[in-house]
Amino acid sequence: MAGNTFGKIFQITSWGESHGPAIGVVVDGCPPGLPLSPEHIQADLDRRHPGGDLPAASPRKEPDRVEILSGTFEGRTTGTPISLIIFNKDAISKSYEQLRDIYRPGHGDITYQGKYGLRDHRGGGRASARETATRVAAGAVANQVLAPAGIRVCAYTVMLGGIVAKRRDLAAISQNSLCCPDHEVIAAMNARIDEVRRQGDSLGGIVEIRVNGCPVGLGEPVFDKLDGELARAMMSIGAVKGVEIGQGFAAAALTGWQNNDPITPEGFSHNNAGGILAGISSGDTIIIRVAVKPIPSIAREQQTINRERQAVKIKIGGRHDISAIPRIIPVCEAMTKLVLADHLLRQSTLR
Amino acid sequence: MAGNTFGKIFQITSWGESHGPAIGVVVDGCPPGLPLSPEHIQADLDRRHPGGDLPAASPRKEPDRVEILSGTFEGRTTGTPISLIIFNKDAISKSYEQLRDIYRPGHGDITYQGKYGLRDHRGGGRASARETATRVAAGAVANQVLAPAGIRVCAYTVMLGGIVAKRRDLAAISQNSLCCPDHEVIAAMNARIDEVRRQGDSLGGIVEIRVNGCPVGLGEPVFDKLDGELARAMMSIGAVKGVEIGQGFAAAALTGWQNNDPITPEGFSHNNAGGILAGISSGDTIIIRVAVKPIPSIAREQQTINRERQAVKIKIGGRHDISAIPRIIPVCEAMTKLVLADHLLRQSTLR
Amino acid sequence: MAGNTFGKIFQITSWGESHGPAIGVVVDGCPPGLPLSPEHIQADLDRRHPGGDLPAASPRKEPDRVEILSGTFEGRTTGTPISLIIFNKDAISKSYEQLRDIYRPGHGDITYQGKYGLRDHRGGGRASARETATRVAAGAVANQVLAPAGIRVCAYTVMLGGIVAKRRDLAAISQNSLCCPDHEVIAAMNARIDEVRRQGDSLGGIVEIRVNGCPVGLGEPVFDKLDGELARAMMSIGAVKGVEIGQGFAAAALTGWQNNDPITPEGFSHNNAGGILAGISSGDTIIIRVAVKPIPSIAREQQTINRERQAVKIKIGGRHDISAIPRIIPVCEAMTKLVLADHLLRQSTLR
Amino acid sequence: MAGNTFGKIFQITSWGESHGPAIGVVVDGCPPGLPLSPEHIQADLDRRHPGGDLPAASPRKEPDRVEILSGTFEGRTTGTPISLIIFNKDAISKSYEQLRDIYRPGHGDITYQGKYGLRDHRGGGRASARETATRVAAGAVANQVLAPAGIRVCAYTVMLGGIVAKRRDLAAISQNSLCCPDHEVIAAMNARIDEVRRQGDSLGGIVEIRVNGCPVGLGEPVFDKLDGELARAMMSIGAVKGVEIGQGFAAAALTGWQNNDPITPEGFSHNNAGGILAGISSGDTIIIRVAVKPIPSIAREQQTINRERQAVKIKIGGRHDISAIPRIIPVCEAMTKLVLADHLLRQSTLR
Repeated sequence: MAGNTFGKIFQITSWGESHGPAIGVVVDGCPPGLPLSPEHIQADLDRRHPGGDLPAASPRKEPDRVEILSGTFEGRTTGTPISLIIFNKDAISKSYEQLRDIYRPGHGDITYQGKYGLRDHRGGGRASARETATRVAAGAVANQVLAPAGIRVCAYTVMLGGIVAKRRDLAAISQNSLCCPDHEVIAAMNARIDEVRRQGDSLGGIVEIRVNGCPVGLGEPVFDKLDGELARAMMSIGAVKGVEIGQGFAAAALTGWQNNDPITPEGFSHNNAGGILAGISSGDTIIIRVAVKPIPSIAREQQTINRERQAVKIKIGGRHDISAIPRIIPVCEAMTKLVLADHLLRQSTLR
Repeated sequence: MAGNTFGKIFQITSWGESHGPAIGVVVDGCPPGLPLSPEHIQADLDRRHPGGDLPAASPRKEPDRVEILSGTFEGRTTGTPISLIIFNKDAISKSYEQLRDIYRPGHGDITYQGKYGLRDHRGGGRASARETATRVAAGAVANQVLAPAGIRVCAYTVMLGGIVAKRRDLAAISQNSLCCPDHEVIAAMNARIDEVRRQGDSLGGIVEIRVNGCPVGLGEPVFDKLDGELARAMMSIGAVKGVEIGQGFAAAALTGWQNNDPITPEGFSHNNAGGILAGISSGDTIIIRVAVKPIPSIAREQQTINRERQAVKIKIGGRHDISAIPRIIPVCEAMTKLVLADHLLRQSTLR
Repeated sequence: MAGNTFGKIFQITSWGESHGPAIGVVVDGCPPGLPLSPEHIQADLDRRHPGGDLPAASPRKEPDRVEILSGTFEGRTTGTPISLIIFNKDAISKSYEQLRDIYRPGHGDITYQGKYGLRDHRGGGRASARETATRVAAGAVANQVLAPAGIRVCAYTVMLGGIVAKRRDLAAISQNSLCCPDHEVIAAMNARIDEVRRQGDSLGGIVEIRVNGCPVGLGEPVFDKLDGELARAMMSIGAVKGVEIGQGFAAAALTGWQNNDPITPEGFSHNNAGGILAGISSGDTIIIRVAVKPIPSIAREQQTINRERQAVKIKIGGRHDISAIPRIIPVCEAMTKLVLADHLLRQSTLR
Repeated sequence: MAGNTFGKIFQITSWGESHGPAIGVVVDGCPPGLPLSPEHIQADLDRRHPGGDLPAASPRKEPDRVEILSGTFEGRTTGTPISLIIFNKDAISKSYEQLRDIYRPGHGDITYQGKYGLRDHRGGGRASARETATRVAAGAVANQVLAPAGIRVCAYTVMLGGIVAKRRDLAAISQNSLCCPDHEVIAAMNARIDEVRRQGDSLGGIVEIRVNGCPVGLGEPVFDKLDGELARAMMSIGAVKGVEIGQGFAAAALTGWQNNDPITPEGFSHNNAGGILAGISSGDTIIIRVAVKPIPSIAREQQTINRERQAVKIKIGGRHDISAIPRIIPVCEAMTKLVLADHLLRQSTLR
């Protein structure tokens, strides 16, 4: 109810602040008997945090080690709640002292203060992107539900700083640190990153998520449609400002004749719908795109106010990424997995 | 859980098929003591169904009359569930008999059949846009919660069939049947509608929703962020394939310096964020845009299959709109009102 | 959230006041393909309302006719919400005018007024036992989920007005209007009813519910245990003031040696546990008992206050039952069925 | 949904097994700005675990130390989820190895195995009473919500092993280790405990809970009535087999004239209703009684089966309490506090 629980059957509850002792997540409703170990989860966590060789990432080094505190027995899930914890290690709270009374533009400082009347200002507190590590951890559990059903989720960069990927060479994704499926635009993306880093500025982009192997029937009309649930899931990631399914906004400029996917005995002729019809998966590939805004923490001086509502200037130092891409990619995958695992289990109640 | 309930405190449960005896909605969690009469609700319903003079609408005549069956006493809400019903009158089920075993392209026929194993094929059954009348009715109740708080919701057409509105003259909206805030493009939009009608085809477009007067603090991080809830609400409307907040997809191509809204003692200098920061309303105008796909029911012959998965041709006759716009506009407003009323009440629990 | 929804997967939302135009219930989450017709439901409704030959019942004649407004197609459920409605016919509101400003002892008049600040006083409004008709109707739908699984629910009177049934002759239940499984005490119960009717007073009693054929595994530890859910379900019926499972309060005076049910290869040797261990059904017969308070509407003059908090005398005329028993029996069965159907579907998510 | 979350606005999610690395609870929906420190919580935890001088308790020594991992800042709640953790220290798993394949009578071993197909057998796993420590910890947070509203919860022993307390001297409760409000029966209770300990057997009893200072209006008809919610809360405690409110089962033998509480300008003349009318708190003292079954772990040899469903004898050694009383008393208080905090916040949404 207070917004930290997600899902209805496969249900996660996330907790933790950027600079508290730990962050974590409780996964409830996971079926029993599935193999689960810290290694299953750690692999995804490591992708969220690829270390210093990532061009768009900050040099900060946080070894996110996940521990399983409950819900498994002898390597298998038991059907009881799975508690995952990641202790915070590399947090330097002192460097945030200057932000106690100042609202950073583009951040939630001013809205958290307005909503709650007080806030943990250190590193963004609960609003920190660090919270998404718990989503990735929970998503790895969801993957254990999806894998036996043959459902595979994959996300990648299709735009960064205005440079658009034209190809969808999925094999290329793991071969470049930007997770871009178009080799030919990677150099331009990196050049754009370097340029913007020198300016003390930051970049946004667009991530596309594909789901293969999703069976017909997931999604609960009329309010818990699969596309609605995916949209909410994506928009709940801090940097995301837009979501579209299949042709998305482009569909708005098509005619019905152009946009309808003809159906043949072999399947759909096109996939303008993005694998979802009337809120229910059609069996075709699900395609989602999300707009990622540029990271608001920039080195350039900005205009803002303090808690006394006086005008002040702010210049945010410290370690900051140039773009939420590519770190946001495993988060997008995780949220997709969480939605799908939940709806796969919901579908099982129809027998 | 099965998808027909929306909201957590201000909570609605919708029911009904296109060609059943009635459709309706139960509104639970509405505070007591608010004035409510059928007239409050009827005005919004009439806007969803403006009648034959609407250029994009079909000539079908359905007098949607709402009745209040419970939850009010002497003109005021009592805090008990408010049951609203609209009897179906103008439904001709026979004309749908040919669709019993054929899946219309772009519709949910094939996915409903796949999900449930059977379906009410008449007029789209539960997947019919007719269901949205119950959303509009419930939204009118939500409005009674929002109005005393000074929150106002307004939606309008900003693109139709590729014709883009450049101005936001809100006074113009009620003066044209397309609900377009730019007088100068209305003729072109109407010409496009006429052209497409002659071709037996249909059109999509983009609707923008504005919320004025929203206080700081609505939205529940991290999963029930206000933008996430709005995205889900919008995407739960049948024809919607994309949602964006503020700059939305355009923000993905900006830098942080360009996209961050500077804060001054007088407020935000810009509103790229669309009135929401870190999932919480900032007090600025909330701006949402939704991509509306073209109506899939078209008079042109299309390729599809029947339940035996044999290839068949289909040509959809009968009464159909050219575009979901403008009828979808009060639906977008209603979903926005439902989200806001729910979050206004949720915020009250923080005291 | 506001209390009119029950169940998590098999989920019902009830609405309606005693003297409004209708009462009803929306059943969401019912699996598709189950046979359902008004006749299935009507039979249970008629048991709740057996008419004038019932010794403990008032002579009022309300023909409760249920209608199905949605969610079925050609005699089967479709997986979409099932809307059931019962129009109110025999309501004489004028006779309640004197109760507008007076709080009846033992009723919710004073607490509804305190909670909501206003209330529909006519016939108890939302607090009327009439609301339970919607539970019985929904329970009949739940029964269609339970029957294929071989689960059978049966309730009966084990105490009325201090007269205790010593035998459990289940065949006798349908042969007497008190639904008592002990023929030998029926005469005494009827004599007690006559005596109390002459005094203008009313009686309470105890109902026992048995569930046969329940498989092992229903119930979700640790908060949604099957006994907890049943307790809440029973206590949500207006007149119920106590609930116990198996030996219940008697178990509190036993030792572990006496109370533990030994387990043998053939099953449990006793059933002190009432078919539930650690909140999960054990496969043995589930046994529940509920304490039903005497009906608070009595013809004797009582002391109370009005809305100005002045002392007044009240003597409640009109048509009133002597006891909630036996009418409450199908309500107890219905609530049990609703809990079991919900948990049967919840269990299916573990696969 | 899987049963480990309790409450709708003030919502807790519990996790952990008896012999895993830790147990814990996430409290979501707690309003911001309330003082909260580990000391607030520890005091209640210590009452649940009074140590070796408790007559009915086992000599096991577990220092339950709670840690707050999130949700507070500088000693106050922030409105974000509060994560509480208690590390397990004194667990000797080896001694449970013999129980891997044997079902203890009166325990959930057989039902957990039947429900999930596998289980953590060590110390009862998730079904262990150890889980209730997280309830007590969460209840201490709930108390910070209730205290400013003047709501006070107090539980005590009114029956133990057949010995009934006749007086309600609340000052006496904290003066004896059995938490009994009747000094005159304590010696008899202790004698009964000694007797049963020598027999290798165990005892049950009855706990009464009183709530003072509860305002009018808590409880959400018709399914989330305050008594229903309390009943579910109590019955969700492992050892509880019955719940009653006010006169409870005794009310079933009264007439309406006897049972109705007359209302006077000064308040109710009696409190047979136990402070709740029509599921809503009346402002009078809330009175609940729960039946606590004898602890099923006894030293006497019992008949049971193993996983191969072969008959075996079992004699449970190790450290076991004679009765769940008095340790269950702070658990009963905690569950009551959780229900009340949730409903106090729910009531705030009616404004």
